[in-house]
Amino acid sequence: MVAELIPHQPDADTLTDRAVELHRGGKLEVRSTVPVRDAGDLSLAYTPGVARVCTAIADAPALVNELTWKGNTVAVVTDGSAVLGLGDIGPEAALPVMEGKALLFKEFAKVDAVPVCLDCRDVDELVETVARMAPTFGGINLEDISAPRCFEVERRLQERLDIPVFHDDQHGTAVVVAAALVNALRLTGRVLSDTRVVVSGAGAAGVAVARILLSMGARDLVVADRQGAIHPGREGLSPIKREMAEATNPERRRGSVHDVLDGADVFIGVSGGTVDESSVARMAPEAIVFALANPDPEVHPTLARRHAAVVATGRSDFPNQINNVLAFPGIFRGALDVRASRISEGMKQAAAEALAEIVGDELTADYVVPGPFDPRVAPAVADAVAGAARAENVARI
Amino acid sequence: MVAELIPHQPDADTLTDRAVELHRGGKLEVRSTVPVRDAGDLSLAYTPGVARVCTAIADAPALVNELTWKGNTVAVVTDGSAVLGLGDIGPEAALPVMEGKALLFKEFAKVDAVPVCLDCRDVDELVETVARMAPTFGGINLEDISAPRCFEVERRLQERLDIPVFHDDQHGTAVVVAAALVNALRLTGRVLSDTRVVVSGAGAAGVAVARILLSMGARDLVVADRQGAIHPGREGLSPIKREMAEATNPERRRGSVHDVLDGADVFIGVSGGTVDESSVARMAPEAIVFALANPDPEVHPTLARRHAAVVATGRSDFPNQINNVLAFPGIFRGALDVRASRISEGMKQAAAEALAEIVGDELTADYVVPGPFDPRVAPAVADAVAGAARAENVARI
Repeated sequence: MVAELIPHQPDADTLTDRAVELHRGGKLEVRSTVPVRDAGDLSLAYTPGVARVCTAIADAPALVNELTWKGNTVAVVTDGSAVLGLGDIGPEAALPVMEGKALLFKEFAKVDAVPVCLDCRDVDELVETVARMAPTFGGINLEDISAPRCFEVERRLQERLDIPVFHDDQHGTAVVVAAALVNALRLTGRVLSDTRVVVSGAGAAGVAVARILLSMGARDLVVADRQGAIHPGREGLSPIKREMAEATNPERRRGSVHDVLDGADVFIGVSGGTVDESSVARMAPEAIVFALANPDPEVHPTLARRHAAVVATGRSDFPNQINNVLAFPGIFRGALDVRASRISEGMKQAAAEALAEIVGDELTADYVVPGPFDPRVAPAVADAVAGAARAENVARI
Repeated sequence: MVAELIPHQPDADTLTDRAVELHRGGKLEVRSTVPVRDAGDLSLAYTPGVARVCTAIADAPALVNELTWKGNTVAVVTDGSAVLGLGDIGPEAALPVMEGKALLFKEFAKVDAVPVCLDCRDVDELVETVARMAPTFGGINLEDISAPRCFEVERRLQERLDIPVFHDDQHGTAVVVAAALVNALRLTGRVLSDTRVVVSGAGAAGVAVARILLSMGARDLVVADRQGAIHPGREGLSPIKREMAEATNPERRRGSVHDVLDGADVFIGVSGGTVDESSVARMAPEAIVFALANPDPEVHPTLARRHAAVVATGRSDFPNQINNVLAFPGIFRGALDVRASRISEGMKQAAAEALAEIVGDELTADYVVPGPFDPRVAPAVADAVAGAARAENVARI
């Protein structure tokens, strides 16, 4: 039965052995882009020629973006506290994921990315450490830092630095969810402002999904955590959940995810929890279900599809994969191209809209987002992000 | 006259313009070493396959050296406080030099190196920041950090981390100077323990040169700074100069560099100061002069050569270039190859001896060190360093 439900899933042992073999020696290298064949080359790329380049930057600091790798380079920073579904495995064990992220940056958007796995957990220390490294990089991609620390780390770094700081677990996911939702609403003839949305999960992804949907016009949106719907009457809410309670759930719905799904139009699961088939059955007609927990979706897509009009997951072996790789390479490409000082809400929305538009007239229930290898994705996202940055005066070139 | 004295020196404007042009976009890129052509590749290099690799490292932490880039990757860390001869130009303006260093690591020894330019100056902050980044890297190459902070930063990081921490301005220079001196002594029929050595400069390079020569058996060695010879009777010495005063100058010589050069066998200038031709003339017969200040040697080599048997400089346009690139790539290659926990005095001496041996029977006054593009250099240094690490039980594989 499992084999029927999970088609084309490679045998787990084979997959993992091949994965370990592939990782021997790591997945990245740092290479010269200039020739170093002889003393003449050396005198230009290193001493004495390099001294003139240093002096030029010392005299005109913005030249660092043109005369070094800074303008094209992003640090992929983690503390290893919330890695994939594995949780708190520490900075060393997180390194393969950061290398993977870095190679995706390069392959999909020609962004040079450097893994930086940090051995510290305190918010002050994380902020200080990243801020001190910032002269080297044109952007900071925060990754796999556990909530709620991730929110404060990102906010404080954004305030402090004049380069984009982007927590991908939040905004990468939010952008791709928003794109998929735009198309799913179009397909089912809905308007976001009149759509009942339930977001299950109030960690990094859940909060960011809620925020981007609110900024795009969602009104009847409920965020739920393990204790159920978040509403202003709940006690013991963390500051971020308190913010969610104030900004969402205008109907003051209470109860479990199961309860609030009753009649809802859209379910967006980023919780790692589970949802019964019966809960999906009780949603509105033509329901939209994004069950994004990995590797095990909140509800199996085959079951969800019996009741819902559109189903998306995080998995590559089902239709409509919500994959961050659709967002982060193009977003940073666009931001770096115009030397944006930050990645604004408008830039994220522009990315989501560009992603949704790629699907265009080919839109079907099984095709609400482009595939990760669609070559149109990163350039379209980059263009949209750069355009939005210019429109908002966030661009510096 | 200048053209005669400085043969083959490219025209400065031409050189600098070409250098700036070469630097557009920077000199490094980060690339994938594994294929990412389709969903199958992605499922191995990224999710879900990568999770198995993370788990393997979480279960057996030493695997991080095999299954990530860590085992082959060095951070080139600076605070931009003492860059080349330019001084305190800050972290951004220092980046071209760190990129240059990184590309030399790759080109000469297949070491992946990552520039990290830090926006902090306090010793505690530098130590903390580098220690927090250390999970990502197999070694730390400190670079262009001003004395005396560089000594404490290095010492404390060496105490704290279990990977090699190597301040190249100290030890890279010291290793190449030691190699050149071994051959110069051989050529002039001297033994180090009976040789009178004057080191002009008590910064990073001067102190490290003094230390390696002492550890190799030098006895009559005087270190001088701008105020002249360092001796225990001098007041107001910094801790590091106090250490020099106690460890060197057994004859308690006093006076200026000019004074202490009288009858000396060896002059090693790493000061940026100047030495008159007349001072060289008053040295012992068959004197050895290493005038290493860049781009202007303490004494012009053409003038020095009128009186000295062997003259070396830091410049590529004269014989006997003392260039750190002869040392650091091979030293880190050897250290990484055996996963050394540190770079010991013995490993540095082994590197110097291996470098000296490459010259072999071809030794002449104009050939006491190999050229920077001699392909034998990095492998020979790496082998010697790895062997010494094994002999000293610093190696871990």
